[in-house]
Amino acid sequence: MVSLGARDELFSFHEFSLIHRIIDQLGVAVAQDIVVPPGDDAAVWATSSPGNLIVASVDAMTAGVHWLEGSESTMTSLDVGWRAVAASVSDIAAMGATPKMLLISLTLSEFTSSVFVDELVQGISDACLFHGVKVAGGDVVKGNANGISITVIGETEHSVDNRILRRDSAKVGDIVVVTGRLGGSAAGLSLIRSAGEIEQSMEILTRRHRRPEARVGAGRKALLAGALCAIDVSDGFLQDLGHVASASEVDIEVICDDVPLEASAVTLLGRSKALDLGLGGGEDYELALIFAEELFKDIEQGSDTELTVVGRVVEKIADGAAVRALDSQGEIYHPAIRGWDHGN
Amino acid sequence: MVSLGARDELFSFHEFSLIHRIIDQLGVAVAQDIVVPPGDDAAVWATSSPGNLIVASVDAMTAGVHWLEGSESTMTSLDVGWRAVAASVSDIAAMGATPKMLLISLTLSEFTSSVFVDELVQGISDACLFHGVKVAGGDVVKGNANGISITVIGETEHSVDNRILRRDSAKVGDIVVVTGRLGGSAAGLSLIRSAGEIEQSMEILTRRHRRPEARVGAGRKALLAGALCAIDVSDGFLQDLGHVASASEVDIEVICDDVPLEASAVTLLGRSKALDLGLGGGEDYELALIFAEELFKDIEQGSDTELTVVGRVVEKIADGAAVRALDSQGEIYHPAIRGWDHGN
Repeated sequence: MVSLGARDELFSFHEFSLIHRIIDQLGVAVAQDIVVPPGDDAAVWATSSPGNLIVASVDAMTAGVHWLEGSESTMTSLDVGWRAVAASVSDIAAMGATPKMLLISLTLSEFTSSVFVDELVQGISDACLFHGVKVAGGDVVKGNANGISITVIGETEHSVDNRILRRDSAKVGDIVVVTGRLGGSAAGLSLIRSAGEIEQSMEILTRRHRRPEARVGAGRKALLAGALCAIDVSDGFLQDLGHVASASEVDIEVICDDVPLEASAVTLLGRSKALDLGLGGGEDYELALIFAEELFKDIEQGSDTELTVVGRVVEKIADGAAVRALDSQGEIYHPAIRGWDHGN
Repeated sequence: MVSLGARDELFSFHEFSLIHRIIDQLGVAVAQDIVVPPGDDAAVWATSSPGNLIVASVDAMTAGVHWLEGSESTMTSLDVGWRAVAASVSDIAAMGATPKMLLISLTLSEFTSSVFVDELVQGISDACLFHGVKVAGGDVVKGNANGISITVIGETEHSVDNRILRRDSAKVGDIVVVTGRLGGSAAGLSLIRSAGEIEQSMEILTRRHRRPEARVGAGRKALLAGALCAIDVSDGFLQDLGHVASASEVDIEVICDDVPLEASAVTLLGRSKALDLGLGGGEDYELALIFAEELFKDIEQGSDTELTVVGRVVEKIADGAAVRALDSQGEIYHPAIRGWDHGN
């Protein structure tokens, strides 16, 4: 759990000694074998192949907004570190690129314990090893509240037509495919908040909330097979598909019955509530992959992730929502939950 | 001035509309002509030449620590934005690399006004244009205090021996050269804090504090001429030289009389106090360049920055400080101010 105690030996907060402590804690997650490893003014490395494109994104989380501290906490500081990495890496996965290096910016309040910092960094390290990225640098500053901001820098092959998974390249007739299962994170959070004992069969839900896994393999596979469009659906499935629809100037229809839900969430909450969380709960860090139907077999074969066709790209119509969830009668279904705004 | 008022139309804080507002405010500082400009899951771009090395660093600033808000404020929010960019770019300059892209992570408290955000972003935009970098992406989150974290990604030419300006490559006999003049930022801050009217002749000092300029040209010129060692001295000149001495396993002697000080700082504070600020005041964002004496003429010729030889790399001695400031009698001089720890 996030430990908020009296000041301990950490604060002191001497930047240089704290950075050494963090580097030690990161262990093999530190990029030691690059041209200039952490410890200089900046880190320096070569791309895997000369001419590869650079892919970069930043994602921030703050205490009290993205996670709670103290007795209301719904995750350990290990989880906070893991999630921060997974959330950032997911943006690179959504481009079909390979994440390579992280830069970590930590803001620590003077009331933070060294246990919090050690566990946060351990969670970062674990997630780095899982996702195959290394830490190339960072900064640690004092602030009024704890916060973490992670920049991920990845790469992808250069091609004459700059092929990459974009939001604006969905085409009428494309299928909409989702990785993994939706709604697990939101169901897990609701379970944690219920504060009762959590049955073993439900632990997959809390794991989805606390230890999301970015779908790097699925994004790469889709890009290499010829897909051109994807988005990370962590702000809520329908809401994020809305960004694709808007950027691509198309409409998207989603078949509610086809949306893959966590079986445990359906058991726990019933199909209707589980569906609402799947369509709008957010924070699943799955990808929506949008491509021509004939590519599906190729992308699915040997995939490290479950892939489910959940909808189709259609012509834009003048009125109404650009993204329409359809129930078993073909009627438009309005889930009770809207998307997640990271600002809120 | 940093405006802290009641909530205004901004908060609301809807992430997507705020991001659009920020992108509008950034104007031509947004990297619109890259492979994937801001607006997708991640930004994508090509290096200037295939095979160039990637150079990256992150630097954070928080309200109440790195700048003050309200009536105690010593800089406008325009200045905060400018400084955040210059501080980050300076780390890339210290490697001899070319800064290219920024990723901005903003944490905004709900008591922040839209004027603060607009001005902060305008300051970022101004500094981007000045330093020749573009904004490739960002994230905006709500938090308990305002903060800004900037990742700069640059590049440099690949060479067989991975030539770049490192901390660990100072050699006995090398000269120590500093760009610009030292102590101006700390003198400017002391002037601002004195709260009197500031004479026009002293405005260079407040400018050094509020609008530092990263020495990208000097770093590039040094690297291309064959230099191998440099450091950004923003934590305090002697303290940062200590990192070079430690990493390179050498000692460094600095001749106090040769340290270039702002004339206005000497006028304002006297030579002795101005020297102390020059040696330990920090936040000047100048570079210490360390190289063989025969390179000096080549590096100085046509330089866009004043370059001054201030010391020399010597054999490591067993006892005593690794970095020694020497007065006109050749005695070790102990400035009254130690270095700056960004954590404090």
